[in-house]
Amino acid sequence: VSDESTKPAGNVGRDHPSGDAGLLPDRIEMAAGLVARAGGLLAADVPAARYAVISDGNVAPLHGAAVAASLRDAGRVADLLEFPAGEASKNRDVWSSLADRLAALGAGRDTCVVAVGGGVTLDLAGFVAATWARGVDLVLVPTTLLGMVDAAWGGKTGLDLPAGKNLVGALHRPRAVLIDPSTLRTLPAAELRYGLAEAVKHAVVRDAAQLEWIGARASALLAGDEDALLELVRASSAIKRAVVAADPRERGERQILNHGHTVAHGLERVTEYALPHGAAVAVGLVAEAAIGEAAGVTARGTADRVAAALAALGLPTRPPAGVSIPALVAAMRLDKKARAGETRYALPARVGEAARDPAGRWTFALPEERVTAALAALWRMPGRSTVSAERTAV
Amino acid sequence: VSDESTKPAGNVGRDHPSGDAGLLPDRIEMAAGLVARAGGLLAADVPAARYAVISDGNVAPLHGAAVAASLRDAGRVADLLEFPAGEASKNRDVWSSLADRLAALGAGRDTCVVAVGGGVTLDLAGFVAATWARGVDLVLVPTTLLGMVDAAWGGKTGLDLPAGKNLVGALHRPRAVLIDPSTLRTLPAAELRYGLAEAVKHAVVRDAAQLEWIGARASALLAGDEDALLELVRASSAIKRAVVAADPRERGERQILNHGHTVAHGLERVTEYALPHGAAVAVGLVAEAAIGEAAGVTARGTADRVAAALAALGLPTRPPAGVSIPALVAAMRLDKKARAGETRYALPARVGEAARDPAGRWTFALPEERVTAALAALWRMPGRSTVSAERTAV
Repeated sequence: VSDESTKPAGNVGRDHPSGDAGLLPDRIEMAAGLVARAGGLLAADVPAARYAVISDGNVAPLHGAAVAASLRDAGRVADLLEFPAGEASKNRDVWSSLADRLAALGAGRDTCVVAVGGGVTLDLAGFVAATWARGVDLVLVPTTLLGMVDAAWGGKTGLDLPAGKNLVGALHRPRAVLIDPSTLRTLPAAELRYGLAEAVKHAVVRDAAQLEWIGARASALLAGDEDALLELVRASSAIKRAVVAADPRERGERQILNHGHTVAHGLERVTEYALPHGAAVAVGLVAEAAIGEAAGVTARGTADRVAAALAALGLPTRPPAGVSIPALVAAMRLDKKARAGETRYALPARVGEAARDPAGRWTFALPEERVTAALAALWRMPGRSTVSAERTAV
Repeated sequence: VSDESTKPAGNVGRDHPSGDAGLLPDRIEMAAGLVARAGGLLAADVPAARYAVISDGNVAPLHGAAVAASLRDAGRVADLLEFPAGEASKNRDVWSSLADRLAALGAGRDTCVVAVGGGVTLDLAGFVAATWARGVDLVLVPTTLLGMVDAAWGGKTGLDLPAGKNLVGALHRPRAVLIDPSTLRTLPAAELRYGLAEAVKHAVVRDAAQLEWIGARASALLAGDEDALLELVRASSAIKRAVVAADPRERGERQILNHGHTVAHGLERVTEYALPHGAAVAVGLVAEAAIGEAAGVTARGTADRVAAALAALGLPTRPPAGVSIPALVAAMRLDKKARAGETRYALPARVGEAARDPAGRWTFALPEERVTAALAALWRMPGRSTVSAERTAV
């Protein structure tokens, strides 16, 4: 018997299910020198009884300690919680130990977690904030270009499991995102390029003029010109925010941000994560544009144009030696979006515009043979290696 | 520089921050025999590619297996995931192992977690659902009276840490709550009484007539009369839902549901959790009514009336032998709501109505000496034991 008399009232109910509510921050600040004065800003705008600044061992001495010191200068209680740098730290053990340290500090519901670092830190500290005392305030201070254009936006937090990346996590809206391009001075050149790969992705699915701009400013961006980087971060993150605002739960349009990533995740798996994510995305963007062209979804010439932009940024456009197409296609079968014999791709219609199928869906299911043929033609590699042909024969 | 041009639009933004959105289910069903036909109902109303039914070792053979079988009869993929019964299972290790089992099953975002059991199961499986693939559908099937009147409502999920209970968790709205009073047949009599203690709490803070009704129907309730129990569950859970709907994030009114719990949590700590939660709540309800009377917040006679109702239900109204008031007051200092030298209490103004202070707050900060004196008068025990006086002298 349905209990009609007690249907939720007011702001509670079907119209605003919790998962679909906003995932974007109330407050966005972007300026050089922001890290040094973060304390005053947070004390005023995100008041808390205690701030827990979380950084990895590389970023803590560079920027995490500065944020904590700035909070203390503003008269606030702030502790710096450090964890070992590296993707391997994005796991349940490190999350547990951070929670135990919050408990030892006596951190309550009125704690604010401040994540200072790259994608791993934003995801891990974000999950700490999402789960401490059933969710506390979170501030993100990305210090990598990838974090600034991509990871800091959209509310995804999570941990890797032995069985796969990001299998555990939560959607948790940050209260504020603070971006200080000065922090990019300490970023290795390769890391800067990996962030540029995601910026290219944003341009390819939403803004052709931005791809032109990136090409024109390539040398300034690669040289670490702070004005150019800040302009890129503003424009590229605005695309991500617009897509997230339109579809927070990734039921439709937000899927376009997976462009390049079906191939990229396959490449990461098949290289056992020796290929960095940003490099895999670069290769994936060209490969998926070519797959889209072969499928008649993407305008001819798109893959070439994307490859030229990536090459100008010093990013790879072909897989590393030793990757075979059959192994890659098999690895893509493990993609979350895959079904039997098919893999799903978010594809551009042309540079600057994502494609939709006739039913309005934002991804395309393509048969493996077709994908294999498109990649073989693009990379001029055999679609069936001898080894895999032998295996198939067994 | 604030990025005004990209403020979230539509249903996204300040008006509906994710944490404040609804925590109550879309679908509520209460009827005898529901467990046996849960599959058809869920297949129609909460469709999912796969159902993961989570139960402890006691409840799995009694009811968890029946829910899973009913889902399979309805043509759905359903697995029963069992964990060891007991509060000790509400921890990170058991959560991790449940997540690993979901990974081994290939469970994706289109999985629905079905929690079948008491408070521990609802909290633990709820946290699994809140964190798997960044949050999947959750259905609650409480099989204890405590679960039916209290734990199934309000969206709180969580785990205990060595440092304290429920320190880690998330707010996660269930899609449906299914209540089958037949499952109470297998509930130990003591567990039934502990559920009645929470029902008394709901009546004390919101509905005087309901306290009368509970008193009049005490023998039927204690005898396990299904009609009486179902009527109680409907009325008592309706109070909880109304309070949660008014204040999902416990910023104000929802705090009244903590009535009795400052003392109860202190008693649990001081007895090292030998005193069951429901028994501690019963003692806490009388104690806090007396504290409220002594503070001039609660109408005279309230504690006597509450004690009479609890005694008629076979619930304790005094602490177990060996509990000293100074030790209890010290243990209450660890309460989340405590500040230096004071502890906070959610108190009734009279039976059926929660009290607010002149500033409109729903809790009262009371000095420890006053609390000590009130408890000493109520229990006719020394406010300072010899042992603690010695300790203080050191």
